[in-house]
Amino acid sequence: MAETSRRERRKAATRRSIQLAAWRLVVERGLEEVTVQAISEAVDIAPRTFFGYFSSKEEALALDRLWTASRLGQVVTDRPEGERPLESLRALARQMAAEITSDRELMQLFIDARRRHPHLMQHLLGSDEERIQAVADTLARRLGMDPGVDPYPALAAWAAMAAGQAAAQRWSRAVGLPGGDPTLTPDAFVDEAFDLLERGL
Amino acid sequence: MAETSRRERRKAATRRSIQLAAWRLVVERGLEEVTVQAISEAVDIAPRTFFGYFSSKEEALALDRLWTASRLGQVVTDRPEGERPLESLRALARQMAAEITSDRELMQLFIDARRRHPHLMQHLLGSDEERIQAVADTLARRLGMDPGVDPYPALAAWAAMAAGQAAAQRWSRAVGLPGGDPTLTPDAFVDEAFDLLERGL
Repeated sequence: MAETSRRERRKAATRRSIQLAAWRLVVERGLEEVTVQAISEAVDIAPRTFFGYFSSKEEALALDRLWTASRLGQVVTDRPEGERPLESLRALARQMAAEITSDRELMQLFIDARRRHPHLMQHLLGSDEERIQAVADTLARRLGMDPGVDPYPALAAWAAMAAGQAAAQRWSRAVGLPGGDPTLTPDAFVDEAFDLLERGL
Repeated sequence: MAETSRRERRKAATRRSIQLAAWRLVVERGLEEVTVQAISEAVDIAPRTFFGYFSSKEEALALDRLWTASRLGQVVTDRPEGERPLESLRALARQMAAEITSDRELMQLFIDARRRHPHLMQHLLGSDEERIQAVADTLARRLGMDPGVDPYPALAAWAAMAAGQAAAQRWSRAVGLPGGDPTLTPDAFVDEAFDLLERGL
């Protein structure tokens, strides 16, 4: 039993080293230059060991967990029917924040990648405008509104993005990134921003 | 008198040709590659004629009219004392919208430049985050708030940006850019967005 858990821990540590190395390589060289070979060398494992953990570099980079337009729209689509739109958006922001902040080391690599390779991240994620449009379109559908006529869905989507950005900024300052208080969760900052939006500025 | 005004019109037309040619060259080649020589060739005038209109390529490009962080902060600083913060932000958005939409041909070149040279425009304008920060800091100063404690200034600044973006998007669709109804002003769209923010979402 002790033996098994030690082995489990060692496997989890290797898995994580591979993931961080893969993202570090993206920051240094860009996505195209990152190969399974290069990742394996960086972690000092054989490529066949890599494939014991991940089936591709995309999987190691967890690209399917990025907040693309379709993923954003899906989260809003999946919210309970009849929920007030600002509550759906708040839930989306909380989920994004929880996921993004759950691994601070990886988050820092995302931030670095975005700064160093803005085109790459735009290619992976879509433009802000496309992503906000996906949320606005989903809201409009749920509310039975015509987005060409009613300003609410687009404004709510843009404002939710603004609330998320303001919350992220306040959270990262309060935490004192990099380093800082690792126990502080972003929820209170997300709620503070959405409460203000709800009440009116 | 007729002679003078014909001459004035001809001068104004040349001035405008120079400006559009300068921005077209920025879109095609990037800012560094654009020289007074290249602009003059594009308009088919001598460089000394160029200098009869503008003292530098920067002046021809009207770079001082770009909405940089310091210009955004200045407009908010200059608003009447005691004005409600959302009114100051609405006035800022109206002024930006009026200026940006006053020359649709130039606006399209700005949009193209931003799409083709995101780094350049970020260099000229500063990042969105820096620009919003400048507005938030100015608001906090005017309201006597500590931006590290009170969430209002940052959220209001981010939300105003969101309102501006939503308004711009709705305006450009309503107008049907490129082309479209040239008489439609963006004010109604700006007001619609700010009214929603004020009332609460």
